[in-house]
Amino acid sequence: MDRSLSRRDFIGLIGRYGGAAGAYATMTAMGLLPVPLAYAGPPALPAGTGEDVKIAILGAGIAGMAAAYELRQAGYGCTLLEARSRPGGRCWSLRRGDVVEETDSRQEVAWDGGDHMYFNPGPARIPHHHQGILGYCRALGVGVEIMMNDNRAGFFHDDAAFGGKPVRARAVVNDARGFVAELAAKAIDKAALSKPVSLEDKERLREFLRAFGALGDTLAYRGSPRAGYRAAPGAGTESGTLNEPLDLRQLLRSDFWQNKMSFGEAYDQAATMLQPIGGMGRIAEAFGNALGDAIHYGAEVTQIRNSSRGAAVVWKDRKSGAEQRMDADYVICTVPFSVLRGIDADFSPEVAAAIQAVDYAAAVKLAFQCDRRFWELDHQIYGGISWTTREVTQIWYPSAGLHQQKGILVGAYIWDSPIGQFFGAKTPEERIAAATASGERLHPGYGDDVTRGISVAWSKIPFSGGGWAEWTAEARRRHYPVLLKPDGAVYFAGEHVSYLTGWQEGAVRSAHCAIAAIAERVRLKRA
Amino acid sequence: MDRSLSRRDFIGLIGRYGGAAGAYATMTAMGLLPVPLAYAGPPALPAGTGEDVKIAILGAGIAGMAAAYELRQAGYGCTLLEARSRPGGRCWSLRRGDVVEETDSRQEVAWDGGDHMYFNPGPARIPHHHQGILGYCRALGVGVEIMMNDNRAGFFHDDAAFGGKPVRARAVVNDARGFVAELAAKAIDKAALSKPVSLEDKERLREFLRAFGALGDTLAYRGSPRAGYRAAPGAGTESGTLNEPLDLRQLLRSDFWQNKMSFGEAYDQAATMLQPIGGMGRIAEAFGNALGDAIHYGAEVTQIRNSSRGAAVVWKDRKSGAEQRMDADYVICTVPFSVLRGIDADFSPEVAAAIQAVDYAAAVKLAFQCDRRFWELDHQIYGGISWTTREVTQIWYPSAGLHQQKGILVGAYIWDSPIGQFFGAKTPEERIAAATASGERLHPGYGDDVTRGISVAWSKIPFSGGGWAEWTAEARRRHYPVLLKPDGAVYFAGEHVSYLTGWQEGAVRSAHCAIAAIAERVRLKRA
Repeated sequence: MDRSLSRRDFIGLIGRYGGAAGAYATMTAMGLLPVPLAYAGPPALPAGTGEDVKIAILGAGIAGMAAAYELRQAGYGCTLLEARSRPGGRCWSLRRGDVVEETDSRQEVAWDGGDHMYFNPGPARIPHHHQGILGYCRALGVGVEIMMNDNRAGFFHDDAAFGGKPVRARAVVNDARGFVAELAAKAIDKAALSKPVSLEDKERLREFLRAFGALGDTLAYRGSPRAGYRAAPGAGTESGTLNEPLDLRQLLRSDFWQNKMSFGEAYDQAATMLQPIGGMGRIAEAFGNALGDAIHYGAEVTQIRNSSRGAAVVWKDRKSGAEQRMDADYVICTVPFSVLRGIDADFSPEVAAAIQAVDYAAAVKLAFQCDRRFWELDHQIYGGISWTTREVTQIWYPSAGLHQQKGILVGAYIWDSPIGQFFGAKTPEERIAAATASGERLHPGYGDDVTRGISVAWSKIPFSGGGWAEWTAEARRRHYPVLLKPDGAVYFAGEHVSYLTGWQEGAVRSAHCAIAAIAERVRLKRA
Repeated sequence: MDRSLSRRDFIGLIGRYGGAAGAYATMTAMGLLPVPLAYAGPPALPAGTGEDVKIAILGAGIAGMAAAYELRQAGYGCTLLEARSRPGGRCWSLRRGDVVEETDSRQEVAWDGGDHMYFNPGPARIPHHHQGILGYCRALGVGVEIMMNDNRAGFFHDDAAFGGKPVRARAVVNDARGFVAELAAKAIDKAALSKPVSLEDKERLREFLRAFGALGDTLAYRGSPRAGYRAAPGAGTESGTLNEPLDLRQLLRSDFWQNKMSFGEAYDQAATMLQPIGGMGRIAEAFGNALGDAIHYGAEVTQIRNSSRGAAVVWKDRKSGAEQRMDADYVICTVPFSVLRGIDADFSPEVAAAIQAVDYAAAVKLAFQCDRRFWELDHQIYGGISWTTREVTQIWYPSAGLHQQKGILVGAYIWDSPIGQFFGAKTPEERIAAATASGERLHPGYGDDVTRGISVAWSKIPFSGGGWAEWTAEARRRHYPVLLKPDGAVYFAGEHVSYLTGWQEGAVRSAHCAIAAIAERVRLKRA
């Protein structure tokens, strides 16, 4: 018996007796809409099945554009209403001549031109397993390249540790490994193993720890090439002199090991990380080109109503100020809740509560043009990140344009909301001054190398109102499931309607869930 | 008092009383020729100082070409004698139409063309701190890009562990971290710390271990997102289901942790690793173009003699068979000792003994064309390496041409000499069959995806005779210092005359040592 067929029959049954929304909820509960184990591509929507069905998509960000891209192939009529004059939303690359408008400031990008002279103020990396967004890179012909995320030549800096001097990641990471392995070896000797272990396994465990931590013969850690050299090996008599291991007590008292030292092992941060060649915005631009005039730019949604046909959306043309109304069979609303909260809508009380329940990260990024790639020339840093306890939090070194003369350096990436609020409250000029001073602690002479800073405080960017959704565990439990069901004819998508918040993959996958549900509803309606 | 001036005076004194060779040995012993702490660029040879000095350079590999490149700028007359018909030696990229000749076989590369359709049978990665070779990439206009070396999506495979099933690196690496951290936490409880530690520090140490190993509340390791998901998080109801942690006993009994699990932390393997865009051979080609007809191709050196002028080199034109003699003031001999052992020379007994004392790795590499980048499409692997206990040892996934349709996959990289000898003894066809069968264990269906294998067994490559020099500790102590002094007019350079054997950086840095010594000798002679 064909199991999928039987499932389909069951869902059909639910559809007949419980209505389309019931079928959607059942499918979701059964885990049939989401792809169960690994992503297997966008939902298969048979050609022509969407004919005469009109969909209004609110927002031409990644979620909205991915939805439209798929739906149009099945014959659905899609209109995307986008308040901005460009596609992509937070998927955005800033280049020479671009403009950043915050609620209270305006910056124009005055950098030199060049393929590598860009800044991704929003998403800037794609994990290798985010095959939804990577699939669109393939489909749209957007080339990808390796993005170096976790670089052992990067620095950790804590004003309160190691005399405020930056320490190379390779020393922090590998001295920590050595100390931990040495400590673990002591547990073997003290018979602290929870399970009885054979002598042979004990010996193997010792060898394992030695390999893990680069321990010496006595299972003590005394430093290792992994942690770097004071004088590196070369030719002639340069046999190399190891660094002294870091002082463990100082390391413990530093801030290095709290979500920093091991960040490159995180599931969504570990190698290989990727980036579109030429900037993340290439994805948005390619989607925008593919969708052409299906996107209405400058269209600010002001009202959403369920209606007898499906739903009605009122929007304002931002140039002319004229209001227009659009009727659709279904709506896919990808507007961030930070913005949707301010739009007049007749959502159910449950949906309205969900929309209120999500916080948005007050993320800030800032980038400089550098006429000299000092991080490569002076510090042998090619891509990756340095960390500091100062408010700029991170400095990102570009993975593109290696060995070119100039480059764009990310001088701040702040995602902690209180710090981001504080930093974002500054004027663009004040942010530049603060970022320059902080960078000086990591790279003496920094102030002479960085110019023409551009910053984006997402909480002050119209139509975004924040970096990404942050669900508390409680809000996730109470409110998230509500969003997996349509509110009448309105479906929700966007990174906030996923378990991959803050990632474009969340936007793509939530869009796929929404269109699969709409397609099933249309099928049942027609059956 | 200016310390460097005083040193120079001292060396001048040695030079006057002990001769140039004495000055060279003194400078070497004082660590003055090598750059002391960090590489500061090639030695500064004042313009014109080399006029009327003729240098014969044996071998147009990286060492010989780096030496000639610098010397020519100071006015030295350089002739490079290169037995092959191309520059670069082991620095080599194979592309469509290229030919591999071993002592007993001939292969022609029948791959499709394309910028990314190359194979580096020799060196294939450059650590970020190898600023000697990277400096030449800058100087010669050879673009570099990131080479992904250590990829958490790669596989470990051991026929004798985990049922012979490949395991993702992220699980191996991070479950190991978790187990080690848990064990270390037990040592705190058992008061196994060697030094008395404050309660506050103990608590900090617990938090540190929790962060290090992704431990749970009770400091036990129960798996973590770092180790990957059975069902990854997505949208809809896909909240993600973690992998079960690997069985520690099986992990201990596997081969994964012996130089594999931690290889990405090695000083010369850790991120960021780089590669020339278009293949390592681009460096060789750019050097070759810069040196033009200073390189005599097809010139096989048959005799090296010290002479009244300096030295005399006899070489055979491999096309015409004619023997020619060349007189020079100095010789820089970069011929690998595996080959130099077979050349008639009047070296001192000490040098002759050193030349005999070095083993060469019987390294083998093999690559396939794949018409479908199955590693990206089916396994989300972008660059990096998978490991197997089978003789092919490693599979390398290309860091270039991501998302292109086709690619070149390295199906074997063997550096262990006994295995390399065994594998290299096979015919090219037998190697392909063996590599295909092994790859099948890592990637089911491999045999259908790999075609047109090309292999290079370095021990059977004329004028190389091995992959790289391997110094035993004893040979390093007894024989290496001999090579830091000239044998009459003959200086030695090449990766084998460095502490960076197997790396192009060793070739560059040894060349710099040799030319600095020659320049100093010329200066003293003229003073």
